[in-house]
Amino acid sequence: MLRTHTCGELNISNLGQTVILCGWVQKSRDLGGTTFIDVRDRYGLTQLVFNTDTDATLREKSRELGREFVIKVTGKVLERSNKNTKIPTGEVEIAVADIEILNAAKIPPFMIEDDTDGGEELRAKYRYLDLRRAPIRNNLILRHKMAQEIRRYLSDLEFIEVETPVLIKSTPEGARDFVVPSRMNPGEFYALPQSPQTFKQLLMVSGFDRYFQIVKCFRDEDLRADRQPEFTQIDCELSFITQEDILNIFEGLTRHLFTTVKGIDLGDFPRMQYADAMRLYGSDKPDVRFGMEFVELNDIVKGKGFGIFDNAELVVGINAKGLASYTRKQIDELTEWLKRPQIGVTGMIYCRYNEDGTLKSSVDKFYSEDELTNWAAAFEAEKGDLMLILAGPTDKVRKQLNELRLEIGGRLGLRDKNKFAPLWVLDFPLLEWDEETERFHAMHHPFTSPKPEDIALLDTDPKNVRANAYDLVINGTEVGGGSIRIHDRATQSLMFKHLGFSAEEAQKQFGFLMDAFEYGAPPHGGLALGFDRLVSIFAGLDSIRDVIAFPKNNSGRDVMIDSPSTIADMQMNELKIKTTV
Amino acid sequence: MLRTHTCGELNISNLGQTVILCGWVQKSRDLGGTTFIDVRDRYGLTQLVFNTDTDATLREKSRELGREFVIKVTGKVLERSNKNTKIPTGEVEIAVADIEILNAAKIPPFMIEDDTDGGEELRAKYRYLDLRRAPIRNNLILRHKMAQEIRRYLSDLEFIEVETPVLIKSTPEGARDFVVPSRMNPGEFYALPQSPQTFKQLLMVSGFDRYFQIVKCFRDEDLRADRQPEFTQIDCELSFITQEDILNIFEGLTRHLFTTVKGIDLGDFPRMQYADAMRLYGSDKPDVRFGMEFVELNDIVKGKGFGIFDNAELVVGINAKGLASYTRKQIDELTEWLKRPQIGVTGMIYCRYNEDGTLKSSVDKFYSEDELTNWAAAFEAEKGDLMLILAGPTDKVRKQLNELRLEIGGRLGLRDKNKFAPLWVLDFPLLEWDEETERFHAMHHPFTSPKPEDIALLDTDPKNVRANAYDLVINGTEVGGGSIRIHDRATQSLMFKHLGFSAEEAQKQFGFLMDAFEYGAPPHGGLALGFDRLVSIFAGLDSIRDVIAFPKNNSGRDVMIDSPSTIADMQMNELKIKTTV
Repeated sequence: MLRTHTCGELNISNLGQTVILCGWVQKSRDLGGTTFIDVRDRYGLTQLVFNTDTDATLREKSRELGREFVIKVTGKVLERSNKNTKIPTGEVEIAVADIEILNAAKIPPFMIEDDTDGGEELRAKYRYLDLRRAPIRNNLILRHKMAQEIRRYLSDLEFIEVETPVLIKSTPEGARDFVVPSRMNPGEFYALPQSPQTFKQLLMVSGFDRYFQIVKCFRDEDLRADRQPEFTQIDCELSFITQEDILNIFEGLTRHLFTTVKGIDLGDFPRMQYADAMRLYGSDKPDVRFGMEFVELNDIVKGKGFGIFDNAELVVGINAKGLASYTRKQIDELTEWLKRPQIGVTGMIYCRYNEDGTLKSSVDKFYSEDELTNWAAAFEAEKGDLMLILAGPTDKVRKQLNELRLEIGGRLGLRDKNKFAPLWVLDFPLLEWDEETERFHAMHHPFTSPKPEDIALLDTDPKNVRANAYDLVINGTEVGGGSIRIHDRATQSLMFKHLGFSAEEAQKQFGFLMDAFEYGAPPHGGLALGFDRLVSIFAGLDSIRDVIAFPKNNSGRDVMIDSPSTIADMQMNELKIKTTV
Repeated sequence: MLRTHTCGELNISNLGQTVILCGWVQKSRDLGGTTFIDVRDRYGLTQLVFNTDTDATLREKSRELGREFVIKVTGKVLERSNKNTKIPTGEVEIAVADIEILNAAKIPPFMIEDDTDGGEELRAKYRYLDLRRAPIRNNLILRHKMAQEIRRYLSDLEFIEVETPVLIKSTPEGARDFVVPSRMNPGEFYALPQSPQTFKQLLMVSGFDRYFQIVKCFRDEDLRADRQPEFTQIDCELSFITQEDILNIFEGLTRHLFTTVKGIDLGDFPRMQYADAMRLYGSDKPDVRFGMEFVELNDIVKGKGFGIFDNAELVVGINAKGLASYTRKQIDELTEWLKRPQIGVTGMIYCRYNEDGTLKSSVDKFYSEDELTNWAAAFEAEKGDLMLILAGPTDKVRKQLNELRLEIGGRLGLRDKNKFAPLWVLDFPLLEWDEETERFHAMHHPFTSPKPEDIALLDTDPKNVRANAYDLVINGTEVGGGSIRIHDRATQSLMFKHLGFSAEEAQKQFGFLMDAFEYGAPPHGGLALGFDRLVSIFAGLDSIRDVIAFPKNNSGRDVMIDSPSTIADMQMNELKIKTTV
């Protein structure tokens, strides 16, 4: 090795030893004849010291050194007079006898410090320098540790990691597939997997019993919502199990990760029906770090002559605890925020529970103080609270109130990144109606099984068929989800029929899976967790971008390597394709 | 869970327990009123027994059961009278009280047995059934175990697993790149990585110090030589190290795998110069399970009037120990085998050392028995040996003799799959001349550093510049290779120049890396091992296909899912491409 120690390991027990360190110059300062240099590597920071008055050679060399130069130093470990108790190496320094420049460095385009002065674009272009900063490096070390723990936990439970193919088949539903032209099969394409779903199910048919994989998946779609075209899943599938088994195993995994990596015991995860989540939080991924549940008011507000409430399918509100002091201006601003096209609220009703016990609403014309007292009772409101109410079509108004609830939760400081509130959401609908294509889509995917007791509804009331499907939510973020799968040809065919596939289309695309179901397919189910998202939650980050070593930007570009890019005509000729731009 | 135990865990300690098992019907036989069924899962095989005379319901159900039906049985664990000591569950059987058919099965298209009657095509189409066979399942379990051990070993040595991108940039050298059209960037393409080479080097520039990844890589090329379009590498890179450190670490990893997975201590790995490997074995990946080293004969055979030898650049042979008894016919057949176009030998000379002490060659006209005695001495031949000699241009004749040596080694039983002979091959040439393009190519890749003492030769004698490059060979198979990398812009530019890049091309394609070298790049190097190949060696297989769950065939097709396939015009329109087939 070029070095005897890393920059993170020397301490008082090494006093007197002659050591060799390699690393980057973090900073250098000259105090009248004595030069101090902090040398950095992945493991830490060590202080070098040398006397430039007495050693002319060292003086020369030290003058060449700039920030981020790569050096190799030999010297003796001494006790520091001025100790730094914040770092493990802070009690010692190296009295440098020799210094060698392994590589020079130009001045970096931004500061390599925890808080950098570099903008997002610049840091993306020089991602290799941004990765030198401790916060980002620590995210990737965290990611590595979590991957290790996940693999260990699942392997101990007899899960086998099996690699499934990356070059697979495009599906007609695959509008978001990346495709790959095949040179050996001109005119034909592979697709990159959006998930290894069918392969893991085939592994169950093969009797693998318990499968997992930490695996890259791909989706070619708009990247607004903090998504990446390539992302990593913890993908699992099990045979001969019930939904209860799956919830227990992956609750166990998640709790294990929190315990070992963050030292937090999450306790048992609460569970909630999808229908309740929508009713109480207007979301299938409620943030349950705080309550502020929805209160439905139809029964007490209708029939008093206020048209907006009378004509609304649903009148529903939240109690913003302690915000009665909001001024009219603040409430107006909140209303304007709700009116943005992304949310689309037309108006908000409020009711203040003043500190003096009076109630004051924006619709006093229609409701007496007695009636407002009923409202307050429904909201369990107390003096000082502010009731915020929306009205409209049920699905729409719930979504809008969800946004408002999260906003108010944030303003009240109820969304602490260091608090973790997990939740299982159960019994999702099997199908959802797509306005655009005017047909049903599978809410999870076409392989999810309906609840046996709901199968009869498929023909009569498809929207109300529940699936054996579940999501894991942490702090209002969907961390993953899964389902018990269909494992017989008849049910799978029925499902494809309800999704608008002809029998021929279904056979052409998924014949291999339906055929497989005829050769002895076990009951099975599984789950996939978004690994990037999970790491970002552990790291306390809002975005997944900084838990990925080399992420792409919102246009799907890697600006560091300048990709995607045009390719040579010769290459296209060989692939028998051409561009039509 | 649906079951209380797996089919592999019940034994004499469970006697009397009532258990529930789930699995597949392996076989069923009726012995006059008593029915025996072997039920199988991933973990093993358990014998079920029930009396069809006394229980009419069980009789009905048992009659429905066919091979590969999925069943759930409840029963009591009994001691078997007729014990099977070959399997862990062989001392017990389950007296079945209830049986439930979880799924029926059609008759499989081939036998689900260790030795199947299914041909390769049929097994590929029904891969999910082929994967039920124990030998293939065991390969994948072996693969999982090896991956676990590799990750554990490297993590313990402070390596961090970092995921590098799959959607990268095509390079002009990338004739074998798979490309991926980008919907968001019409007319532009990503490429799938042939290796994460540049990214792992950037991680070193970022100070990650020790990186690894078990990662899918992609190459769009002819698949004759047991290759797959997607394959898995154990990819590693380290900073502040010497070649010696890298050899030691990965020799340690390989030995650890052999010890923990196969219980074999390989001892220290021998090392050989590339030049010696070519001289003694005619190959850069010699199979050193056996000796049979090449013997060069120029000095003793030339100038005796035998034109073929006199005009040859190299006369070289091997001693086929004990094969003097080969008949003329056998030798002719061997010669014919060598004359196939793949090898292209024009003729072979032989010399028998007969059991009676006489020497007999195919060129007795030109060489006296005294001279043949000199040959025998050179070959260290003894009575009963057969000397086989080829002549021609050095590189060509060495390659040919390598084929002959491997063939003879095989015939002599010297290539035992249960014997493992590792070898480091060192000091590869930096460049190799490509006849077709009439320019030099990098033998490893353009980032490999030349030996400092050879850099001066780059201008005068490029073919003889040696690289800091090494390969790990096991049993004549290249398991992996690596190098100390270039880590400064000047040397990297020089290298690109010698590879025929203009400065502009080099900057366009690899500017990000050369730029990175200017911001403080540490000395670094690394290695990549072919994981599929390594597992196949551990499994004693000639092909990598059966250590991969869902491999593709020689045309790059997955015949199970029928991929690649055509895609819809609408999809191509969105991607702004069209096919020109």
